[in-house]
Amino acid sequence: MVKYPIKKTVMNQTRTSVSNRGMDLEQAINETNQYYIDNDLAYIYKKPIPIQVVKVDYERRSAAKISEAYYKVPSTTDYNGLYKGRYIDFEAKETRSKTSFPLKNIHEHQVTHLSNVIRHGGIGFVIVHFTVLGRSFLLDASHLVVFYERAKSGRKSIELSDFEALGHELKEAYVKRLDYLSVIDRVYIKRED
Amino acid sequence: MVKYPIKKTVMNQTRTSVSNRGMDLEQAINETNQYYIDNDLAYIYKKPIPIQVVKVDYERRSAAKISEAYYKVPSTTDYNGLYKGRYIDFEAKETRSKTSFPLKNIHEHQVTHLSNVIRHGGIGFVIVHFTVLGRSFLLDASHLVVFYERAKSGRKSIELSDFEALGHELKEAYVKRLDYLSVIDRVYIKRED
Repeated sequence: MVKYPIKKTVMNQTRTSVSNRGMDLEQAINETNQYYIDNDLAYIYKKPIPIQVVKVDYERRSAAKISEAYYKVPSTTDYNGLYKGRYIDFEAKETRSKTSFPLKNIHEHQVTHLSNVIRHGGIGFVIVHFTVLGRSFLLDASHLVVFYERAKSGRKSIELSDFEALGHELKEAYVKRLDYLSVIDRVYIKRED
Repeated sequence: MVKYPIKKTVMNQTRTSVSNRGMDLEQAINETNQYYIDNDLAYIYKKPIPIQVVKVDYERRSAAKISEAYYKVPSTTDYNGLYKGRYIDFEAKETRSKTSFPLKNIHEHQVTHLSNVIRHGGIGFVIVHFTVLGRSFLLDASHLVVFYERAKSGRKSIELSDFEALGHELKEAYVKRLDYLSVIDRVYIKRED
């Protein structure tokens, strides 16, 4: 069994109750997805966090209590679903860096997962939010795979200028907080018409 | 927070160690999916089980221990992924009944989920295994939705004869234990050519 420190998940759980300067990426994406669902534009949802259950207490019949469990290394991504009949799959990450996104924030299994997604005809990408800059980018998984391979022998991060050149900036708005489907329309679906 | 008795999950965890007569449906599907992945035919995987984490101990830095958590009512299905560019999504269920599949085995959220999947252009279905009969069927989500609606005021199960008439029987084999993609090819994809 793989046990794993859970920095990211802990951040997610406490983030809203601690400092909340600027955009909360997960919250923005969840609200955006809810908007898409409410308006029946797309059906994209968050996957459960993978947890390895070790011990369960059955004292109360109504609700079995898990008394020992561990976060597992995620083998897939945070979000997937459907848009206009296409499979959509992505991971969302934040960084406080002003210049680059450190690739240690993404697990190798997740890169393999996204690589599988695009090879089998799905749309796979990452959304990276530079919290200090207040800028967000959508980067296709094909680019992520290249940067990840390069990191094995070279630079271990993706520079902001790479996001500017190869990615698509997402502007935050009041409704549709982070309307990434407008990029999907423009870059992935319109291209195929 | 929704707490929920976990009959199904407990069954899954103990099933291999208890009686193992006949086919273990989850095991058969997992092996089939692995075959598809190994041969790069499709990329279909099991989603994590949704768990509500209440308390985490950080005593050891290397592995945060979850000391209180509960199984949540599943809002989606067990499996999803990609086949020939199409989104695939399904739930797998067993019943010991020889005559019908009780709909209490499926949660309303899961029916809504499958309904969303097919409305947005995905392929959604259930695989039901009649353990005593040793027979398995793939039933499209559109039929499940109808039976589920009917159950609110009428019969609360799907009869074996309904599976025979509206579903597609899956034959178990040595490799590709339960080759459901052959049905997808024949029924969903070929039809669209």
